[in-house]
Amino acid sequence: MLKVYGDIVSGNCYKVKLLLALLDIEHEWLHVDIMRGEAHKPAFLALNPNGKVPTVVLEDGRTLCESNAILHYFAEGSCFLPQDRFLHAKVLQWQFFEQYSHEPYIAVARFIAKYLGLPEDRREDYLAKQAGGHKALEVMEKQLAQTPYLVGDTYTIADISLYGYTHVAHEGGFDLQHYPAITAWLARVKSEPRHVTIEQFL
Amino acid sequence: MLKVYGDIVSGNCYKVKLLLALLDIEHEWLHVDIMRGEAHKPAFLALNPNGKVPTVVLEDGRTLCESNAILHYFAEGSCFLPQDRFLHAKVLQWQFFEQYSHEPYIAVARFIAKYLGLPEDRREDYLAKQAGGHKALEVMEKQLAQTPYLVGDTYTIADISLYGYTHVAHEGGFDLQHYPAITAWLARVKSEPRHVTIEQFL
Repeated sequence: MLKVYGDIVSGNCYKVKLLLALLDIEHEWLHVDIMRGEAHKPAFLALNPNGKVPTVVLEDGRTLCESNAILHYFAEGSCFLPQDRFLHAKVLQWQFFEQYSHEPYIAVARFIAKYLGLPEDRREDYLAKQAGGHKALEVMEKQLAQTPYLVGDTYTIADISLYGYTHVAHEGGFDLQHYPAITAWLARVKSEPRHVTIEQFL
Repeated sequence: MLKVYGDIVSGNCYKVKLLLALLDIEHEWLHVDIMRGEAHKPAFLALNPNGKVPTVVLEDGRTLCESNAILHYFAEGSCFLPQDRFLHAKVLQWQFFEQYSHEPYIAVARFIAKYLGLPEDRREDYLAKQAGGHKALEVMEKQLAQTPYLVGDTYTIADISLYGYTHVAHEGGFDLQHYPAITAWLARVKSEPRHVTIEQFL
């Protein structure tokens, strides 16, 4: 059976859990405790030399890493990934934006605040993440004021990628009340059929 | 005609230049001087609200951002992007690795050293990037000791993405002599037909 190595406290892992639920793909979830550093231990590094979750092992034993690459693999041929060449590239545009301009600010601020308890020696780092996070949220707000989903009228894996950490951004100190289009989009994603919440797996 | 907004000092822009050369795609290159902050001025933000190069404007006026999404758009249907679902996902895995685990260390260290002249107030930041850069290089070395290209036997846009900043990593203080497989791969990529160097456009 398909194996998913992950830790649901990570939005990157939750993204995969959400898509697998939407597609009703059976899998075994193997917990890798990132707070205990299990992703950096030899047994896990043999699966993913980069020491990051999520990592999946397909039924034939081949491994695949990076949350957004995993989403593409499973979404291929489904309604969550447009076939049109330009829209397909737009999905990727938002996913690369997520990993470069969104996750390093919002996910890291959340990690410092929620999981490390905002220790004094990380406060400066935490505060430094706020501006970048708000910049990313403004870029999203601008798009979502124009279209119901990031790439247009349909729910795609670009939305799943950005939903991962945006819906828990408040845990990193980001007040979303100034982002009405994002707030409406979060509700839209949450009301999609077969949606599962991160809390269901905590 | 296809318009590419970029600054060739950026490896992210050079990636696009390289693929367009390999595919012999005619385009107009519009210089956006990142050292003068031109990517953050209103005229450019109207094209890309995230204020980053490269950004392309297709012949029909639609825009596309994020270097790796742009590579996918142009490589679609070519020999540089495998059709096989798993290999396609593996290309993406390496590209997301590049944007998250490689570029933020190697490109930023290079920028501080080469373009800012390693000022005293950035020295700590520069030094902090070294460990992450070497970790990324080790992950690449491990793969390239097994396969001639990142995703197997053929040259793909995963190689183009990683070549962008790896081939100038020494400018960020990374000595590649301890990475024989990477060194051999750099020479392999450089010897591909229709290859263009970053220096040709400086």
